[in-house]
Amino acid sequence: MPAGPLTSVGIGDDAAVVTAPSGSVVAAVDLLIEGRHFRRDWSAAYDVGVKAAARSLADIAAMGAVNTALLVALAAPGTLPARWAAGLADGIAAEAARAGAGVVGGDTARGDEVILSVTALGDLAGRRPVLRSGARPGDLVAVAGPLGRSAAGLALLSAGLSARQLPPVLAALVAAHLRPAPPYDAGPEAALLGATAMIDVSDGLLADLGHVAAASGVLVDVDSARLAVGGPLREAAASLAAADPAAPTEAGNPPPPVSPAAFPAGSPEATALDWVLTGGEDHALVAAFPPGTALPARWQVIGEARAGAGVTVDGLPHQGPAGWEHFR
Amino acid sequence: MPAGPLTSVGIGDDAAVVTAPSGSVVAAVDLLIEGRHFRRDWSAAYDVGVKAAARSLADIAAMGAVNTALLVALAAPGTLPARWAAGLADGIAAEAARAGAGVVGGDTARGDEVILSVTALGDLAGRRPVLRSGARPGDLVAVAGPLGRSAAGLALLSAGLSARQLPPVLAALVAAHLRPAPPYDAGPEAALLGATAMIDVSDGLLADLGHVAAASGVLVDVDSARLAVGGPLREAAASLAAADPAAPTEAGNPPPPVSPAAFPAGSPEATALDWVLTGGEDHALVAAFPPGTALPARWQVIGEARAGAGVTVDGLPHQGPAGWEHFR
Repeated sequence: MPAGPLTSVGIGDDAAVVTAPSGSVVAAVDLLIEGRHFRRDWSAAYDVGVKAAARSLADIAAMGAVNTALLVALAAPGTLPARWAAGLADGIAAEAARAGAGVVGGDTARGDEVILSVTALGDLAGRRPVLRSGARPGDLVAVAGPLGRSAAGLALLSAGLSARQLPPVLAALVAAHLRPAPPYDAGPEAALLGATAMIDVSDGLLADLGHVAAASGVLVDVDSARLAVGGPLREAAASLAAADPAAPTEAGNPPPPVSPAAFPAGSPEATALDWVLTGGEDHALVAAFPPGTALPARWQVIGEARAGAGVTVDGLPHQGPAGWEHFR
Repeated sequence: MPAGPLTSVGIGDDAAVVTAPSGSVVAAVDLLIEGRHFRRDWSAAYDVGVKAAARSLADIAAMGAVNTALLVALAAPGTLPARWAAGLADGIAAEAARAGAGVVGGDTARGDEVILSVTALGDLAGRRPVLRSGARPGDLVAVAGPLGRSAAGLALLSAGLSARQLPPVLAALVAAHLRPAPPYDAGPEAALLGATAMIDVSDGLLADLGHVAAASGVLVDVDSARLAVGGPLREAAASLAAADPAAPTEAGNPPPPVSPAAFPAGSPEATALDWVLTGGEDHALVAAFPPGTALPARWQVIGEARAGAGVTVDGLPHQGPAGWEHFR
């Protein structure tokens, strides 16, 4: 495992020692469990490593911090092939390196299922952490990174399609589900831009904005017209609707109308928008900024904070599931 | 969960922020798995929490650092009673507090079995970490904390005895197995005394001294006469021998002689010494100190480092298992 630039003592002793240049350390832990967060028939070992690392690394970025180190605990059956474990380590190390972190410690033990616990450490470079609780009425709400792509990829996999059978534009959605690629450096960037609140989208945009709204004591309204519901998402939704005659169509018996009402329920457009609003695991970063903040291009304004409570879409409560239930 | 004095941001945001006063952070992660490291019919939830915390906290102490924070990840079946989870949290918090640390972060998810992953963070207060690799020929080797008590307690439990059925002196051994109590403050103390190498005894004294010997490029010789093989250990061994007529006795067919030969194989004295030499999970600290170091009373000199390689007892290789296999 490669050590990061701030690793003073890496793997092999009782504990690691990591430099904390600014006198504090940011730390988060996340679990990744077989059958709940990944399936070994869908994910290669490398993919599982990337995903496990990304979940924790994104939490550090969402505080406005730079990742410095990962510690990895792996429980696995004795039957787990050594090759699989090696692929897993490769995926973890590659994603850690992409975030600028080293893998500095770990533990392994026998378990009935494959469970990974990844702890990420980060440094704030002297800045204050960007919490969930700082958004104020009038703040812009903006997102950096993809939304809905992981959910679309999961829907394709769940329909029995694999990346090999799909055109490149849809195969990329499957890849986005298997190997999320959070924009880690957008976290410290947001902090420098004066972000008042930030979170990574792990549970779904509306659910995670709900955490920000609750912690900040504001209402967050999302402007659906500003969400980038990309062509690939609509294409994936159309492919799935065509492949599944049981799916509701405009001509069928539609479910009750949902907000926003711009798209007929069950249409590919509505499905794609639903992935964007409620799909988790892309680990995009969503942040609030003081009104008038000049944002770099990758920060897309999608709404604003207002006096009130909860999350609305185009001023209306969103109906349907806001949360992300993984695939079980 | 109580936050520690150095917690700047605790549970509830994307990540915790912990003060790292001396500009570096010490970090270690350990797994605790049901059926391997604990049994729910033997351990109360509180006990499991104490043990999970102690494993990681002891790693930080073994670097000469002071514990500052814990992050806890718990995978558990949906059938786990909420009362059990609350007891677990209490045990973790209590042991963290004993070490001066706060519980600052966590994650929970459904899993088939109960698995805990505990990450401990610590601070060196500006000192260099005490690694495994610094022992030099001539160094004293000394231990702080109990040896063999956890193994004795496990043997009593494995024989079907519970603390309730046992006299207090033996019940205390069962308690030592269920709720290890590492001497955390002895870690920084050893660092201040100039320790050249240190490790916590999690795998067994000989096995862990083997790690120090290998990393330092020395031989470590243990003087069995200096090991405190307490009366309670001999009493436990005698009770077990009396209760199990199948156990080898002096009159039976003894296994090949082991070193040290002072006690007949299979005698209570030999069993007790074996627990001290090879029993794990007490998390005593064992350290090397320059010759002539004046050690406080709780640091018991048990041997010395010499030119060579490996670990010997009274100058002879130790036969039999050196490692600790938990109870599976």
